Amino acid sequence: MKLSTRLSNLVPGGDDGWGLFMKSREMVAAGVPVIELTIGEHDIRTDPTILTAMAEAAQGGHTGYAAVPGTDDLRRKVAERTEDRTGVPTGPENVLVTPGGQAALFAAHLAAIDAGQPAAYIDPYYATYPGTIRAAGGVPRPLVTRARDGFAPTAQGLAEVLPGCASLMINTPNNPTGAVYDAATIDMICAAVQAEDCWLISDEVYDSQVWAGAHISPRARPGMAERTFVVGSMSKSHAMTGSRCGWIIGPEDAIDHLITLATHTTYGVPGFIQDAAVFALEQGTAFEDKVGAPFRRRRQLALDLLSQQTLVGHVPSGGAMYMMLDVQATGLSGEAFAHSLLEAHHIAVMPGESFGAAAAGHLRVALTVDDDRLMDALRTLLEHAQTLTRQTVHAD
Amino acid sequence: MKLSTRLSNLVPGGDDGWGLFMKSREMVAAGVPVIELTIGEHDIRTDPTILTAMAEAAQGGHTGYAAVPGTDDLRRKVAERTEDRTGVPTGPENVLVTPGGQAALFAAHLAAIDAGQPAAYIDPYYATYPGTIRAAGGVPRPLVTRARDGFAPTAQGLAEVLPGCASLMINTPNNPTGAVYDAATIDMICAAVQAEDCWLISDEVYDSQVWAGAHISPRARPGMAERTFVVGSMSKSHAMTGSRCGWIIGPEDAIDHLITLATHTTYGVPGFIQDAAVFALEQGTAFEDKVGAPFRRRRQLALDLLSQQTLVGHVPSGGAMYMMLDVQATGLSGEAFAHSLLEAHHIAVMPGESFGAAAAGHLRVALTVDDDRLMDALRTLLEHAQTLTRQTVHAD
Repeated sequence: MKLSTRLSNLVPGGDDGWGLFMKSREMVAAGVPVIELTIGEHDIRTDPTILTAMAEAAQGGHTGYAAVPGTDDLRRKVAERTEDRTGVPTGPENVLVTPGGQAALFAAHLAAIDAGQPAAYIDPYYATYPGTIRAAGGVPRPLVTRARDGFAPTAQGLAEVLPGCASLMINTPNNPTGAVYDAATIDMICAAVQAEDCWLISDEVYDSQVWAGAHISPRARPGMAERTFVVGSMSKSHAMTGSRCGWIIGPEDAIDHLITLATHTTYGVPGFIQDAAVFALEQGTAFEDKVGAPFRRRRQLALDLLSQQTLVGHVPSGGAMYMMLDVQATGLSGEAFAHSLLEAHHIAVMPGESFGAAAAGHLRVALTVDDDRLMDALRTLLEHAQTLTRQTVHAD
Repeated sequence: MKLSTRLSNLVPGGDDGWGLFMKSREMVAAGVPVIELTIGEHDIRTDPTILTAMAEAAQGGHTGYAAVPGTDDLRRKVAERTEDRTGVPTGPENVLVTPGGQAALFAAHLAAIDAGQPAAYIDPYYATYPGTIRAAGGVPRPLVTRARDGFAPTAQGLAEVLPGCASLMINTPNNPTGAVYDAATIDMICAAVQAEDCWLISDEVYDSQVWAGAHISPRARPGMAERTFVVGSMSKSHAMTGSRCGWIIGPEDAIDHLITLATHTTYGVPGFIQDAAVFALEQGTAFEDKVGAPFRRRRQLALDLLSQQTLVGHVPSGGAMYMMLDVQATGLSGEAFAHSLLEAHHIAVMPGESFGAAAAGHLRVALTVDDDRLMDALRTLLEHAQTLTRQTVHAD
């Protein structure tokens, strides 16, 4: 029976770029002790106090349909956090609670683009981006950035890609590159979006994980609050990935329409999870700093190690839970290097190619195992790079 | 800033038919003691044993990203329940777990229809149906049924509406009418769908609440498993409305594509909620019968009361948690009657018009308050009908 074209073509060619990840998971299932540095998930679980708050809310009776826009309490807390961090006046009426950040990205695109319209995104990109645009009926248009620009977009890139687009999706701090856009870059993006009169969809789920520079929300720039959807989530900042609780911040009129959309596509988020999120947000920035601390620390350890050699480069990164390594000097693609490393040493890292052509010849390393195992894995990776390089040279 | 046409037109005219419901909620918020018979939600909370299972799963560490298709355990349990109830061979590979039944309805339409394609649904209908089709980019096409046919579709209706449609959505046991389609109706629907070579989207969330006749899943009919998406949920059968845990059953290839869609639109369902759902399903049909028992009992009480008068009629209903009353003899629309009843007696019922033109002159009464309050409310409703009728006659 024929499926919709949208669904058949969601991932063209059927390759979603996660082949290595699947292979690694299969090895784990078969009992192989793989060190997984593939996925953006903390090596801690959700804090027990948050889970207790959730259990108490549920046992206390918050188990019926919750308000579709989100509970008043959570909408208010999210608005407060946003205003505190960005300075932009933000009220509950600017917030829609969604079942996770991915659902927020999808809903924002459903609001911004109509079927057949081009929608831009920055390449390298989080794996779901182009498929999210396709799922919303749009035509994904990559804005390819370069390692030598720190994987930030340029004015020329924006001028080439943005005309005709209904939206541009950015992500700072960035997954997979760790790039944190500076003020000049944010200003340039805002000017381009205003000139093209299109929506900006700003994925800020790593806003609490900045290790160099500062997070700047483009919604805080003049004239941007009316054309920006900010996507946020409890996943990364509070180690609540499995709770599937995120949000969209936007203009009140757009949020009203997005609430109607939510009525027809999700019908809200469990009330007891929203109560747990309120409890978690009440713990303030100290809690978020604690959740992010291991990534800050491991990034520094990794930088120290990398500075002792020159074969494997890295993209100067300022945030999130990843580092992007440059293995082009080995003569191998990121894909070939990652498969070789997995087979030879049972260490799983993501090929840069999984995140777009712009990241070819790179590896994304998630800093999501304890410090000692991470450093052992990175040392092995560096040795493997040298071995591969010798082989390549020998083969020449 | 301009929103997508899809979002601007999701609810044409801006009236979603829930005005009375909102008015009732406002009265409650203002402290008025309203008897709410509006919404399809149990007057019990989720069972504490289910919530304990959820809390234990969470505290036990199931707080990270769960597998996007659903956990192996839940997919297996849902497949088993489906096979047990319908006889159709069903495996985990036929199941996608979704964040609630509404998300499943939406995803099924994204799979079945492309932008601009007509998609049929039975009128009267659950309030979100046409908007769900619009959200998926389709053009909703109502198949109007009549009270005198027990609100079941006819061969003529199917022949008129189905040509050119990519899908037909049905719902038996039905919300809002309580209709349970008999074997002849199911066969007729299956034949029509096969002749038109379109998808059948079968909303079976009330499959455990049948008080007369028997639930027949059209997927069990010859040749139908390959073209049917069955939508199910823990909400109604297990009083877990707020947990947002539902599923789609379909052909394996279609489910594979729907898993890819889920990766790009929701990224799965909380693992601890899925563990709670597994626990709930392990309690078997006795538990589901217990959850449904109040509705079975109240329906009989209501039928006994209605049989003592002739002014207010009712649609012979066989399932779900509603009764559809016919107030046409009062000379008022359902809308006018419902507003009058709310104002005069603080009793909130849904106007039939909220569920489509076919239900005009009717009221949907949710059997979702305790027996005594329900019977008091129904007696008041009947007296109000007589008062209104006298006024109408007098006015003539």
